[in-house]
Amino acid sequence: MDRRSFLRTSALGGSAAAASTLAAPAIAQGNMTLTMVTTWPRGLAGVWDSVERFADNVNSMSGGSITVEPKAAGELVGALEVFDAVTAGQADMYHGADYYFVGQHPAWAYFTTVPFGMTAPEMMTWYYANGGMELHHELGEIFGLKSFIAGQTAAQGGGWFRNQINSADDFKGLKFRMPGLGGQALAKLGASVQVLPGGEIYQALSTGALDGTEWIGPWSDEKLGLQEVCDYYYPAGFHEPGAALSVATNLDIFNEMTPVQQKIIEVAAAEAHQHNYALFIANNGPALQRLQSGGTNVQAFPDEVWTAFGAASKEVLDGFMDDEMFATIRDSAEASMKSASGWMSVSDSAYTAQRNRVLGS
Amino acid sequence: MDRRSFLRTSALGGSAAAASTLAAPAIAQGNMTLTMVTTWPRGLAGVWDSVERFADNVNSMSGGSITVEPKAAGELVGALEVFDAVTAGQADMYHGADYYFVGQHPAWAYFTTVPFGMTAPEMMTWYYANGGMELHHELGEIFGLKSFIAGQTAAQGGGWFRNQINSADDFKGLKFRMPGLGGQALAKLGASVQVLPGGEIYQALSTGALDGTEWIGPWSDEKLGLQEVCDYYYPAGFHEPGAALSVATNLDIFNEMTPVQQKIIEVAAAEAHQHNYALFIANNGPALQRLQSGGTNVQAFPDEVWTAFGAASKEVLDGFMDDEMFATIRDSAEASMKSASGWMSVSDSAYTAQRNRVLGS
Repeated sequence: MDRRSFLRTSALGGSAAAASTLAAPAIAQGNMTLTMVTTWPRGLAGVWDSVERFADNVNSMSGGSITVEPKAAGELVGALEVFDAVTAGQADMYHGADYYFVGQHPAWAYFTTVPFGMTAPEMMTWYYANGGMELHHELGEIFGLKSFIAGQTAAQGGGWFRNQINSADDFKGLKFRMPGLGGQALAKLGASVQVLPGGEIYQALSTGALDGTEWIGPWSDEKLGLQEVCDYYYPAGFHEPGAALSVATNLDIFNEMTPVQQKIIEVAAAEAHQHNYALFIANNGPALQRLQSGGTNVQAFPDEVWTAFGAASKEVLDGFMDDEMFATIRDSAEASMKSASGWMSVSDSAYTAQRNRVLGS
Repeated sequence: MDRRSFLRTSALGGSAAAASTLAAPAIAQGNMTLTMVTTWPRGLAGVWDSVERFADNVNSMSGGSITVEPKAAGELVGALEVFDAVTAGQADMYHGADYYFVGQHPAWAYFTTVPFGMTAPEMMTWYYANGGMELHHELGEIFGLKSFIAGQTAAQGGGWFRNQINSADDFKGLKFRMPGLGGQALAKLGASVQVLPGGEIYQALSTGALDGTEWIGPWSDEKLGLQEVCDYYYPAGFHEPGAALSVATNLDIFNEMTPVQQKIIEVAAAEAHQHNYALFIANNGPALQRLQSGGTNVQAFPDEVWTAFGAASKEVLDGFMDDEMFATIRDSAEASMKSASGWMSVSDSAYTAQRNRVLGS
C-alpha cells in the first residue's frame, strides 16, 4: 500500500538519525530491557497504576527475561511524542491513549474511545471476542507497532461547569476543555474548544480562561481540585464512554521476542485492562460521594443536549469515512457495540434496574 | 482455628490413602505437570473455552515450566468431586464454579454468584480492587486451596418456561431446575426446585418432569435445544447476575511454585476471566436474535415477581449470617456492589440509556 510506505517514511521523519543509534533494545544474555515511554506524568492516579501493573507483571512473569522500564512524559520524550519515538525505534514501547494519535491516523481513536462509542464492557467484547484486537494489530502494522489495550478509565465524566447546562445553546461560545473527537463534536455545537494538559486546567478555570472542563472522573478530578473552581458536575458524558489505554511495542522488537515473551506481553496487557477498569470503578463512587458532601451540585444533561451531542458526534465520525481503514474499524466496532448493547439491555441492565428498585439503592 | 482443622480433616476424609500416593505433581527437571480436574463436560460452549484459555496461556507463558492438563468431569473424578480431590491432593488444581461447594462452606457462593448479587463488572471491581481476591484466598486457605476467578458467564438468563409468568404465585408448585442459593430462594416462593445436570434437562422438559429451567444464557441454552421444548424465555434473572468460574490450586503445590510460576497462574486466571466475559457477551446477543427469529417469545418478569425474588433471596442469604466468614464476605461484597452500582448508574448506565435513546437502538 502506498499509504503504508508514506506513513512509515513520515513517521520516521527527522528522527531517523537518532533512531539508528538507539534502535535495538538492550539485550544481555538473552534478557531484554525495554524502555517504555508514556503519555503520563509519573504517579498520575489510576492511569499510572496501569503502567506499573503492566510493567511489574511482565517483569515478574518473565523471570528477568524482560525488564520494562517506564518513563514518565518528558523524561525521555514528551507525552505526544511517544508514538513517533516508538515507530522510529528511539524507544521500545509506549503506554498511552491511542486517540492522541488521530493525526497519524483517525482510526486510532477507536482503540481509546470515540464520542457515542463503546462502554468498557462493550470494548472488552469487541476487542477480545469480535475482532477488535486483530484490527488494532492491522492498524499498528502500518506504523510498525504491535499494540494491545492495557488500561481502562471506564466512562469518563461529562465534566465541570461554572453554570448549569439547560440547553445545547448553552455551549455556544463556552470556553471548554475537551480533547479528541469529542472536542471536535463539541465545537460543532459552537463551543470554543481548548486542549490543555491536566496540570494547567485548574489555573485556567481560576482565571476565567476556561468556563468548564472535562478531565477523567471523580477520583482523578478531585485530585486536580476542580470542585474548588466549578459548582456543577455532570457524571455522564458523551465523549469518552470507556477509554482504553494501550501498550504499543516497536514491531521489529516484538518480532524479535520469543513466543513466550510475546505471550507474556499480550496477557499482561489484557490483565492490566481489566484491573485498571476495576480500580477506576472502585474509586469513582467514593470520590463522587465526597464531592457531593463537599457541596458539588451533581447534574445530568437534559435529553435535548444529549440529542445534540449525538448529532454532532455522528457528523465528526462521518467526516472520516472516506478512509477505508477508518470505515472498516468503525463498522466493526459499531456492529459489535449494537449486538452487545442489545443483549446487555435485556439482561444485565434489566437485572440491575430491578435490583436497584427492589433493594432501594 | 478449630474450624480449619476440622475442615481439613473432613476434606481429606476417606481419600487420604489414595491422596498419599498421588499428592505431588509430576516434576521433571524443574518442570511441573499439573492435573486440572473440572466440573465441565469437555467442549461445553463458553465454559470450556475458559478452561482452555487459562491452560494454554499458563503453558505458553511459562515456556514449559508448567503444563496444565485439563480433565473433563468424569475423566478422573466426577464434576462435584473436584473440590475434595484437590484439597486432598488427588489432583493438583480444579476449574469449576465455586458455588457448587456451598456444602463445604456457604461463602463459596460469593466467588461464583449469589441471588441479587453482583454483575460481572461489579465482580471485577470487588475482586480486583475492593478486597474480594484477598477474601477468596482467606477462604481457600481454610481448605488448603489457592483460588482465583478465571472465567465469567456474565448475567445468566431468567430461564425457560412453558407458560408465561404473570405473578409470583405462578411459581407455586412449578417444577423448575435451578441450582445453588437461587434455587433455595425459588423454593421459598413455593417452586418444586430440582437440580439436574445440563445433559438431562431437555428430556426432563420433554416428558413433563420439569415445567421450566434456567441454564446459562442464549448461546449455551440454544445448544441444548431448550427453545424446542419451551415457548417463553426470560433473558433477565435474579439468581446468577454474573457467574465467575474459578481455578483453585492445592495450596501445598502453589507454595512449592516459584514466584514466577505463581504470578503466571494469577495473571492467566484474571485474563481468562475478562476474555470469557467478552466471549459470552459476544455470543449471547446473536443467539437471542436467532431464538426470537425462530419463534421464542422473549419476556420480562413483572415488578411484583422481582420484588418476591428479592425478598426470598434476602431470606436465603440472611440464613447464613451466623457464620462469621460468610458475614465478612457478604458485607464486603455488598458494600463494594453498592458503591460500584451507585457510580455506574449515574455514569455508564446513564450514558448507555441516552445513547440507546439517541441512536434508536
